[in-house]
Amino acid sequence: MPNHSINAPAGFLAAGDHIGIKKQKKDLALILSEKPAAAAGCFTQNTVKAAPVQYDQSIILSGKKVRGIIVNSGNANACTGEQGLKDVKSAAGAFASLAGIEADEILVCSTGVIGVNLPMDILLPGIGRVFAQLSKSEAAGEDAAQGIMTTDTFAKTAYEEITVEGAVVKLAGMAKGSGMIHPNMATLLAFITTDAAISAELLQKAFTASVRDSFNMISVDRDTSTNDTALILANGMAGNTPIETEGEDFEKFSAALYRINRKLAIDMARDGEGAGKLMEVNVRGARSDADARLIARSVTSSNLFKAALFGSDANWGRVLCSMGYSGGVFDPDHVSVNFRGAADSIDVLKDGAPIAFDEERAKTILTEKEISVDIQLADGDFAATAWGCDLTYDYVKINGDYRS
Amino acid sequence: MPNHSINAPAGFLAAGDHIGIKKQKKDLALILSEKPAAAAGCFTQNTVKAAPVQYDQSIILSGKKVRGIIVNSGNANACTGEQGLKDVKSAAGAFASLAGIEADEILVCSTGVIGVNLPMDILLPGIGRVFAQLSKSEAAGEDAAQGIMTTDTFAKTAYEEITVEGAVVKLAGMAKGSGMIHPNMATLLAFITTDAAISAELLQKAFTASVRDSFNMISVDRDTSTNDTALILANGMAGNTPIETEGEDFEKFSAALYRINRKLAIDMARDGEGAGKLMEVNVRGARSDADARLIARSVTSSNLFKAALFGSDANWGRVLCSMGYSGGVFDPDHVSVNFRGAADSIDVLKDGAPIAFDEERAKTILTEKEISVDIQLADGDFAATAWGCDLTYDYVKINGDYRS
Repeated sequence: MPNHSINAPAGFLAAGDHIGIKKQKKDLALILSEKPAAAAGCFTQNTVKAAPVQYDQSIILSGKKVRGIIVNSGNANACTGEQGLKDVKSAAGAFASLAGIEADEILVCSTGVIGVNLPMDILLPGIGRVFAQLSKSEAAGEDAAQGIMTTDTFAKTAYEEITVEGAVVKLAGMAKGSGMIHPNMATLLAFITTDAAISAELLQKAFTASVRDSFNMISVDRDTSTNDTALILANGMAGNTPIETEGEDFEKFSAALYRINRKLAIDMARDGEGAGKLMEVNVRGARSDADARLIARSVTSSNLFKAALFGSDANWGRVLCSMGYSGGVFDPDHVSVNFRGAADSIDVLKDGAPIAFDEERAKTILTEKEISVDIQLADGDFAATAWGCDLTYDYVKINGDYRS
Repeated sequence: MPNHSINAPAGFLAAGDHIGIKKQKKDLALILSEKPAAAAGCFTQNTVKAAPVQYDQSIILSGKKVRGIIVNSGNANACTGEQGLKDVKSAAGAFASLAGIEADEILVCSTGVIGVNLPMDILLPGIGRVFAQLSKSEAAGEDAAQGIMTTDTFAKTAYEEITVEGAVVKLAGMAKGSGMIHPNMATLLAFITTDAAISAELLQKAFTASVRDSFNMISVDRDTSTNDTALILANGMAGNTPIETEGEDFEKFSAALYRINRKLAIDMARDGEGAGKLMEVNVRGARSDADARLIARSVTSSNLFKAALFGSDANWGRVLCSMGYSGGVFDPDHVSVNFRGAADSIDVLKDGAPIAFDEERAKTILTEKEISVDIQLADGDFAATAWGCDLTYDYVKINGDYRS
């Protein structure tokens, strides 16, 4: 089976390893493009932005092409003041000098504990050691995906191939999620590589649109991180006719990019800290796109409904309640709600009126690992889908003593 | 010791008992004023408003004087359609006919499961039985406070006495909270009686202001209920010179009312579902009142910080993170944070820079049952205080199977 890792697109190398920021698990990942790549990014809207977020934003805004990304886990380099920004630049400089390029061709991301300065005495030699491991091998790509994980229980990756004017274009993604997940513009960390030839402007346009419908529609705990960053590099080495105008090729590329981001986003929701179940909320018939989004996200974010899901309790009143405080406009008297699993589904509310339903059958559905909540507002033509997970004892356990 | 229950102010009677809506615990409370009382109320801003909320709002808006309140627990009468409103009117009518008054002199509140119609075959005879128990005794007042509880572990009451132009004016409050607590205009259920003579207009003004700084500043789980209702009845039987203009008497009354509401609100946060600790967040130095409120409430609402509190983990990065996504404006480089218990306090962030602090000492502070997070923004002159609780295994347990 061919390599489907982050280094699968032409010209991308990757590596990941344990360098000692964390006790045992891999904590560093590097991505390098053989040629300068158009770059686009989406970043946290949190007022408190980690140093690497501030740094990456300035590079993406400059429109400069990019050659690589360095990502560490175990330390978020957030709330670290001036020293934090200096450390980002030192890390970028170390990677750049090894690659023989400029420091501002390297993007930097961090995830982990907030408020502790990066251990540069560990990071700088670690970059050197992992740089030596950069390769096109699938194993190296998998190492990179593991190097960005924190409390994730599995590595999240996605892969797509499309044909653009006869040329095969590859897209690969890797991401980490788990906790502090309620993205606003991006999710904790997601990286996409593609060998597509595409203008930076269209790359940002396609990326922003797909992030809006993928990472920005998931929630684990309603906590928007200080470090949320999604980046895409497109190095053009697929040799396709460059995508420089909107049209069929752009649509095809955008659709593939959305599939990548959607898969990564759903995996993040599925692997939310302590999560045992994936929740998909489909809102249909909304008065506006904004209403549909607000309502869908609110349901996935309700602690009460998330706890009910954990208990396989068909407590649809909590769905209605969370819709009601979402800020989205709807008429409660028009709402219908259905709980759906892989094998069965059950109506619990129809046109605003409760339905006497079989509790045992509902419980069986809600015991499944993937549950859809289908909400028909019957108010208009807009729709949105959001993803979340249940609230479990393990979420509390993981976060009750994260730092020790 | 004199009676400090809800029926302590002159002319108020109360009763509470188990009538069978819940399996065993008390589930009905009645309050009756011997004379018509000025009434004021604050209600949930949830789009989905329970039938009793819709009913009470229309009565309060009418400006009509009120004689009594009927409260059931065990069933929220929310998402119950036309039948829900009919049931509210039937309940009010039953109480009114026993008291020999009009149905629209009775307010109705419900709390409990959403989406199930009230069991009127149980409620109507129950009202008759509890009506016969109405009295001025402290025991009856305590029964009423218990009759409104759901998952609350203790009854929440408050009492104040003030002197207005030589006349003793009494105020008494009772409330229930626990889960689905993130009030917007009021909290789940709170009832204040007073024998003060005060105009309905000033009563509403004082009540709204105090609710804003008390019930609207607590959060258990960021879920704003469909049933939030806070009501106050003032029957004038203290015989004080009526408070009809703003001035010293109004200020004195407002201050006492705020003390009542604040005490009830803090008790609700302390008794949040599964909670083991009370969190008080004091924001100082904000650019505006709105910024101070948004930031204080966001910290009390963060699942991640709530879980850290459960684990006595001084994870101040989560405080900063939740401030950052609050919507409140501040400069992260100016922020100082201190964790404070009864015996000790510790600085963890000063002017935006982390402080190397003694982790063991911080853990000892955070192990206390009441913890203050003092946040100095150094950006302006506005302040706000919010209250919350930790996120525990028991919260998940209680809400994982609430209905069974």
